[in-house]
Amino acid sequence: MPKPAPASRSAITNLMRLSHSAGCPCHGCSTARQGGVNMIRAGINMISKHGSQPGTNSRGYATPVDLASQKEYAFELAASNIRYGEGVTKEVGMDMANLKAKKVGVFTDTTVRGLTAMRQTIQGLESAGVKYEIFDKVRVEPNDKSWAEAIAFARAQDFSHFLAVGGGSVMDTAKVANLFTCYPEADLLEFVNAPIGRGTPIDKQLRPLICVPTTAGTGSETTGTAIFDHSETESKTGIASRALRPVLGIVDPLNTETCPTAVHISSGLDVLFHALESYTAIPYTERMPRPANPLQRPAYQGRNPISDVFSLWALKQTVKYLPRVARDRTDVEARGQMLLASTFAGIGFGNAGVHLCHGMSYPISGLNKKLAHYKHEGYQVDHPIVPHGISVALTGPAVFDFTAPSSPDRHREVAAIFKGHDSASESTDIARIPDSDVGALVYDRIAEFLSNLGVPRGLSKLGYKDEHIPSLVKGTIPQRRVLDLAPGIGDVMGSDGHEHLTRILEKSMSY
Amino acid sequence: MPKPAPASRSAITNLMRLSHSAGCPCHGCSTARQGGVNMIRAGINMISKHGSQPGTNSRGYATPVDLASQKEYAFELAASNIRYGEGVTKEVGMDMANLKAKKVGVFTDTTVRGLTAMRQTIQGLESAGVKYEIFDKVRVEPNDKSWAEAIAFARAQDFSHFLAVGGGSVMDTAKVANLFTCYPEADLLEFVNAPIGRGTPIDKQLRPLICVPTTAGTGSETTGTAIFDHSETESKTGIASRALRPVLGIVDPLNTETCPTAVHISSGLDVLFHALESYTAIPYTERMPRPANPLQRPAYQGRNPISDVFSLWALKQTVKYLPRVARDRTDVEARGQMLLASTFAGIGFGNAGVHLCHGMSYPISGLNKKLAHYKHEGYQVDHPIVPHGISVALTGPAVFDFTAPSSPDRHREVAAIFKGHDSASESTDIARIPDSDVGALVYDRIAEFLSNLGVPRGLSKLGYKDEHIPSLVKGTIPQRRVLDLAPGIGDVMGSDGHEHLTRILEKSMSY
Repeated sequence: MPKPAPASRSAITNLMRLSHSAGCPCHGCSTARQGGVNMIRAGINMISKHGSQPGTNSRGYATPVDLASQKEYAFELAASNIRYGEGVTKEVGMDMANLKAKKVGVFTDTTVRGLTAMRQTIQGLESAGVKYEIFDKVRVEPNDKSWAEAIAFARAQDFSHFLAVGGGSVMDTAKVANLFTCYPEADLLEFVNAPIGRGTPIDKQLRPLICVPTTAGTGSETTGTAIFDHSETESKTGIASRALRPVLGIVDPLNTETCPTAVHISSGLDVLFHALESYTAIPYTERMPRPANPLQRPAYQGRNPISDVFSLWALKQTVKYLPRVARDRTDVEARGQMLLASTFAGIGFGNAGVHLCHGMSYPISGLNKKLAHYKHEGYQVDHPIVPHGISVALTGPAVFDFTAPSSPDRHREVAAIFKGHDSASESTDIARIPDSDVGALVYDRIAEFLSNLGVPRGLSKLGYKDEHIPSLVKGTIPQRRVLDLAPGIGDVMGSDGHEHLTRILEKSMSY
Repeated sequence: MPKPAPASRSAITNLMRLSHSAGCPCHGCSTARQGGVNMIRAGINMISKHGSQPGTNSRGYATPVDLASQKEYAFELAASNIRYGEGVTKEVGMDMANLKAKKVGVFTDTTVRGLTAMRQTIQGLESAGVKYEIFDKVRVEPNDKSWAEAIAFARAQDFSHFLAVGGGSVMDTAKVANLFTCYPEADLLEFVNAPIGRGTPIDKQLRPLICVPTTAGTGSETTGTAIFDHSETESKTGIASRALRPVLGIVDPLNTETCPTAVHISSGLDVLFHALESYTAIPYTERMPRPANPLQRPAYQGRNPISDVFSLWALKQTVKYLPRVARDRTDVEARGQMLLASTFAGIGFGNAGVHLCHGMSYPISGLNKKLAHYKHEGYQVDHPIVPHGISVALTGPAVFDFTAPSSPDRHREVAAIFKGHDSASESTDIARIPDSDVGALVYDRIAEFLSNLGVPRGLSKLGYKDEHIPSLVKGTIPQRRVLDLAPGIGDVMGSDGHEHLTRILEKSMSY
């Protein structure tokens, strides 16, 4: 083994840029700041080791390799522990006692406050003799103000442990309350994804968080993601870091018992598109740059063999059971399977990422109040609302028509699943379809599935008009964290990506 | 909600028994000792909550429910983080630096000491500036003496972190070296499964362990299991606790490059039977007793919807890729897929358990030196040896013939996979086979698969004779931890189980 050759100034500069950049282009990376020097040393060493690769001259001395221009070569799977069972919520008190919790911060919203899930939680904590304080003011679709309120509450207490009982909004809010308690001086934008936030990596271990989901949708009980509405830019963004991940997700089918049908459908569509988008995201080997340190490897890393297994399973379950829940929300088996599917999809997209449907969903729901004024049936609110799952689903048919050429076999498989087959090879007619027709087939299948669930047939049904498309495109562009994982979209900052997004939105106006 | 009724003396005694029993009958539970009082309180509360269940009288007062006689209602999935990629071993130095390691105990064996995996590891640690000490005396198939030596080494140092580079023997030895460093006063049998050990639950958080597997077999990089030969009783047993689980498995296909074909095959058979046994284990809802505290829920908890996904995927991969590796060990794709399959199977059986093949494998390999004197071809040792994967495979055909009636559809699916189909419904001839014939079909398929890999066709080919069967049965009985998960075996302490084991071994003499 030759001694490491001295690295050039440009290699060092490049590595420093990678390790210190606040607006790191990777998706939710969590580079430890103080790791900078180590990373640079490690990077130099990595450079010096590429002996058999281009960039090494014949004397065995390395010439600098620009890691930022290299593709990824590895992937990492991380997931919270998951416990599943009817009535398992009541164990949470014993869990907190086992974890030696001194005082637990319990986060929920005003609706869930009165439901079985919270009743079981409180009984569990009390019978285990664990102290707790409840914050029940979590806002559905949280924003900077509601996050600030939750953070102020948590900072004023001295919680040793955190507990979230509710949907994605509750779990995400508990994650940030935990985060900002551990960073008592930091302001809200410190860790938020660039370009809206400063994207500072989280370099501390947070306090243990247990999540008890009450909707089958977000999968937030397994992920390190927290999403909110940023008022100033009127856009959705968030924080993504493995550090935010709960230690345990308690997945109890009894907790979705009182969920209204409209919420089951919208949440279930979120599951469907978590599965579809993560299954069709670019492969991890296409992502750039190759991280100089494993800490820089993002959670949203592109599809990989392990995320595939979770995403595909969740897709099959959702196609099978969501229509059953929609028909009859007292169907216990279907409801249980959907809850498990949402957790599986969470592990899938939590380790692979989502792409176009989620990227465009943010302006579709965000600009609704200003442009479309749509109020979804079955939602008891006094203001316009496009539920998250619906906003994600609306571009579904056009998106997978667009992505089909990137991996025709995967899309053929998707089409087969919507047709009730386990694999494309089971259905000879689907196996025989030429690559060029797969997009249209997937478009039809998804459109039919959505239509049967009562999803509005296109953006125009919400009140969006052709002249709104440029605003929707503009609102999508900042979602680089997910757009970078979309196959075939090209550079979203350039005219190429811009044009693709425009065409997908045009095709999503009506179907 | 009625106020909890006072619990009866017998309920309290029963819960105390559950929480204090050193020889806890559950599989590798990790009850915190000091949790006893909390558990009893919680147990009383659980009893008081069964208002709508049998055991509650009409006034709403609970009569005591014997939790020990209730079946399980929940399952838990836990797995190490997994990182996969060619050459990813070199990142381990950065990982240790990121974890702020002060001094790392590196465990390996004399063979792996000279291989690429260790070279990359040492380079990684050195370039990240992490201090380390190497223990390279891990015994292949470790025993109490070799464990004691590794423990003495670790106790004499002050390791902040542990690192294992090698196969299952190395990873298991690193796990116990870590464990007994954290319990400096404990003796070897303290945590070993009852009846051989005292089965004391592990109630401390151990130091972070990273595992780098160099064989595609054990899956130990994702599990909390460590296995060894107990000299005094001449049997294999071990320690099973989620507390032993590594924080990260670094799964690098370059590390199996130098593995000899015979080792690839034997290790690959271990993967195959991890997958088959966990997929056909009793469902978690059939396991008893229902734990009074989630800490008592064993890792080997019976099959469940999540372990199923991992086990089935690993099974399909192994059936597809193991024969390719056996034909040509330079087949890079097949080798990579087998390594991933071993990790998947590890997550599968690590959360569901194994049963008969593994249970009987221990006396088959353990009694070989005394009874059969078989030396497997391709193993460079100067003493009789039945490699672990071979000892597991030998009873395979007879075992799944025996278990088929417990879940004919699952066994039909297994048969379809061996025939190269993705599911039983793909193969109309398999779908049409009556339940009563499924066992014979699976027997044939597994026998053919093993035979094509050159596995000896039965115990008689090793030198075992009919008169040895009682000894093999006797050697299997202490494996209650896994036998309890075998469908249809009955009480292995009674005549029923005894007879079943005898018949399976008779059928495994030759095929």
